[in-house]
Amino acid sequence: MTAAQTAASAAAERILRAAIEVFAESGYGGSSTREITKRLDMSATAIYPHYASKEELLYAIALDGHRSLLQALKVADANANADGADHTTRLKAVVAVFTSWQAENRKQARVVQYELHGLTPSHYRAIGALRRQTMGFMAGIITAGVAADEFHVDCVDDVVVAISSLCVDVCRWFPSRQHNSPHKLGAVYADIAERMVR
Amino acid sequence: MTAAQTAASAAAERILRAAIEVFAESGYGGSSTREITKRLDMSATAIYPHYASKEELLYAIALDGHRSLLQALKVADANANADGADHTTRLKAVVAVFTSWQAENRKQARVVQYELHGLTPSHYRAIGALRRQTMGFMAGIITAGVAADEFHVDCVDDVVVAISSLCVDVCRWFPSRQHNSPHKLGAVYADIAERMVR
Repeated sequence: MTAAQTAASAAAERILRAAIEVFAESGYGGSSTREITKRLDMSATAIYPHYASKEELLYAIALDGHRSLLQALKVADANANADGADHTTRLKAVVAVFTSWQAENRKQARVVQYELHGLTPSHYRAIGALRRQTMGFMAGIITAGVAADEFHVDCVDDVVVAISSLCVDVCRWFPSRQHNSPHKLGAVYADIAERMVR
Repeated sequence: MTAAQTAASAAAERILRAAIEVFAESGYGGSSTREITKRLDMSATAIYPHYASKEELLYAIALDGHRSLLQALKVADANANADGADHTTRLKAVVAVFTSWQAENRKQARVVQYELHGLTPSHYRAIGALRRQTMGFMAGIITAGVAADEFHVDCVDDVVVAISSLCVDVCRWFPSRQHNSPHKLGAVYADIAERMVR
């Protein structure tokens, strides 16, 4: 990367972070790119070299969020696997990270989960493909656990949806009076997910 | 009720239903009361005798949604109790109805769950009180099950949040390729909730 490219990439990242704040506060439909640039003390047109429209910005937020979560789950599983863990340990490690990711990145997660209706059909399909990858990744662990007679479930897909729901919904309510540590909540939800499959 | 009151109440109900559609499609922030009256072929000012502002309309939707859900849960439990059911049967009946309510009323549920930031602080507190009632109702069943040695959980409040998350998140994704029957999904989620407590 040249110095100019690095600077452009840093600006794009700053715009993306500001857009998450604005969309999370006012909703995607109630926000304008002008509010985003204003927050960054940029001119109204400074956004366009990086994102051609408000929708492109929403798409970039959704792509970044889905990729970052999927990557975090894969790293958690790889770390568990490196220790030669059983499938229960793998599942718990992945659920703990899924949960804490939603807690830590709750503003981005809310935009990602609740504002997808703002995407163009082709962008929506691209995000749908990433979501299916994430679900498939979770399904792989549960299927392996069932095959090893470690897990006992009626329907793998139902359990995947249920565990994902449990984790995703964290972005809606976190923090609460009872929970303000993403890490501790991750441990609690890992135990609950274990109950769902054993 | 006089005939005039009945007509006013029917108009208020029609406006509320149209507002749910509009808010669910464009987000609360991205919607105007004008879009709502337009959809009903009403004049732009016809809304005000019923709802003084867009925020009043959001509050009415949230009140109606929370009250209707809580009432449905209470009826499900009363029916199970009338049969002298054990706590597992009670919990399953309540979770099944919680789930199917979210599936059937998913547009209203999304507005209720995702757009609460649009409420004034005093309206937000009123809705918060209703939410705590709903959580308290679920906690009552689980606490009774623990006391009867039917349920074994580490922390009642954590399980209540987890089961509520499982059910609430249905409004985000329902229907899917796999599930398009609110009733069948309710039965699946009742079984999953049972696993969380036994």
